[in-house]
Amino acid sequence: MGTKCIGVDIGGTSVKLGLFETTGELLHKWEVPTRREEGGRYILPDVADSILKILEERGITQEEVAGAGVGVPGPVMPDGHVEVCVNLGWRDCNPQKELSELLGGIPVKSGNDANVAALGEMWQGGGKGFDDIIMVTLGTGVGGGVIIDQKIIAGRHGLGGEIGHIHVRDDEKEHCNCGGVGCLEQIASATGIAREARRKMAASDAPSAMRQYGDALTAKEVFDEAKNGDGMAEEVAEMVGYYLGLCLAQLAMTVDPEMFVIGGGVSKAGQYLIDKIEKNYKKLTPISENKGKICLATLGNDAGIYGAARLMLD
Amino acid sequence: MGTKCIGVDIGGTSVKLGLFETTGELLHKWEVPTRREEGGRYILPDVADSILKILEERGITQEEVAGAGVGVPGPVMPDGHVEVCVNLGWRDCNPQKELSELLGGIPVKSGNDANVAALGEMWQGGGKGFDDIIMVTLGTGVGGGVIIDQKIIAGRHGLGGEIGHIHVRDDEKEHCNCGGVGCLEQIASATGIAREARRKMAASDAPSAMRQYGDALTAKEVFDEAKNGDGMAEEVAEMVGYYLGLCLAQLAMTVDPEMFVIGGGVSKAGQYLIDKIEKNYKKLTPISENKGKICLATLGNDAGIYGAARLMLD
Repeated sequence: MGTKCIGVDIGGTSVKLGLFETTGELLHKWEVPTRREEGGRYILPDVADSILKILEERGITQEEVAGAGVGVPGPVMPDGHVEVCVNLGWRDCNPQKELSELLGGIPVKSGNDANVAALGEMWQGGGKGFDDIIMVTLGTGVGGGVIIDQKIIAGRHGLGGEIGHIHVRDDEKEHCNCGGVGCLEQIASATGIAREARRKMAASDAPSAMRQYGDALTAKEVFDEAKNGDGMAEEVAEMVGYYLGLCLAQLAMTVDPEMFVIGGGVSKAGQYLIDKIEKNYKKLTPISENKGKICLATLGNDAGIYGAARLMLD
Repeated sequence: MGTKCIGVDIGGTSVKLGLFETTGELLHKWEVPTRREEGGRYILPDVADSILKILEERGITQEEVAGAGVGVPGPVMPDGHVEVCVNLGWRDCNPQKELSELLGGIPVKSGNDANVAALGEMWQGGGKGFDDIIMVTLGTGVGGGVIIDQKIIAGRHGLGGEIGHIHVRDDEKEHCNCGGVGCLEQIASATGIAREARRKMAASDAPSAMRQYGDALTAKEVFDEAKNGDGMAEEVAEMVGYYLGLCLAQLAMTVDPEMFVIGGGVSKAGQYLIDKIEKNYKKLTPISENKGKICLATLGNDAGIYGAARLMLD
């Protein structure tokens, strides 16, 4: 078996790639643009060309490569089949099979990008050293990944780890992107947090430092002002902490991981956010003191390439 | 490897035992009383004596036995350690190790009884033919088991499948046995259903057929009257269906099984209950039409011995 592996994280605007030692060391990372035209037909050939070029430049033979893993921004079936991937324009294809052919037979595995990022954090990030983790990614949306015994629980229909679409709130009126009403994503994503803050400002005349940002208010600013002691911003942060704590409590009662890893742009709020989540998580799991802990993700945007590379090491 | 296996389901008043072909055929089942005195020290010797007697009677040698599995009514750590089992009086013991010694070295594995019952339903019950199922047992309490790739997700701290203690309701005031407030068990267990019905009757003067049963009202009677068209009973059944549907939706977004299997005494309400659950489950998972289905358990009280026996076949 080869001593190198490759991680490919396909995003809507660029593809991130990483060349790794199978021990987990990142040797080189680079990007190529995501060409979405014509149903995304050029994406995999671009990826393959770019990988073959890097291997050639570094004098790495195909035999030295254990394989390439791919994170796809959409649901991936257990056999690698992608029914539809809106972000890339793909329909009814099998990217892992296609990429393997384009790479001259190098083994390729694929998975949903949020699940793959969770695997990356387990391998070399906040969850390093643990076999069972759940990652929650708080970005534009809320993604997640459930890792048990070092393996992704992708689910039988590609819904494994779709934590952002857990229904948590009955009194929501607006619809989530998924068609649901009251999803975690509507509260705890960057967009959700800013929306909650705007709602609070609209519902009251009380002063708040958040008002200076107007409609352009971001989740970062909400948390910054909460840390500065702004009452209304603190209420929003409390609410986000409550619903995330609630979800983590549910997850602990379902698969009981060793560690919850919180990532994505919103997690830059750091320990302040973790403390808000943890307070509610503990309150909602009185059944035992002995349960999964909560930490911050450490790999940032590289979690995807790490996890994709790790796919090849089973 | 042997062609027979033994399933042991230890309950608070009796131990159920089953002798199986490794193909899944139940050859013989029997019970012994659970002697809880003196910290439950006689339970495993009683079980071992009873097993050895049956094997002798049937002329089955130890070599023919692949092993014995044990379902324990409390948390079991991954190595078989039981810190405390209130129902049996056990403290700080390893029943799988002890029973194996008492059986002259026959391999023994153990698990939490609700998890083990789920494995039984996967093997020969409502989940037969599927690798990934979640069982929800609606009895005096609400138990559960998460099975992925034919294996129990017991969790790192023994909390895997503790579905009854998922927090689902913020407006609850009473405490659950676990110390929490607003657990699924407080609504969807047999005791919870009867309590909800009594609450509804106390809160209104409206007529209801449920009133004839007084304080002795049972969950069965609530569902019977709901099926008969009693409005207040229907409201209770709707509520139970809502919270169960909510939990199943959360579980689908977490581990996405192929099948949800609903068991326990309350599940005798049958398809009427499944329909109530399914309506809400579907409403709360608009993200995809393609998701886990819901069915009734089929093994009844034998799920535990089936699952315990199945523990030995990995």
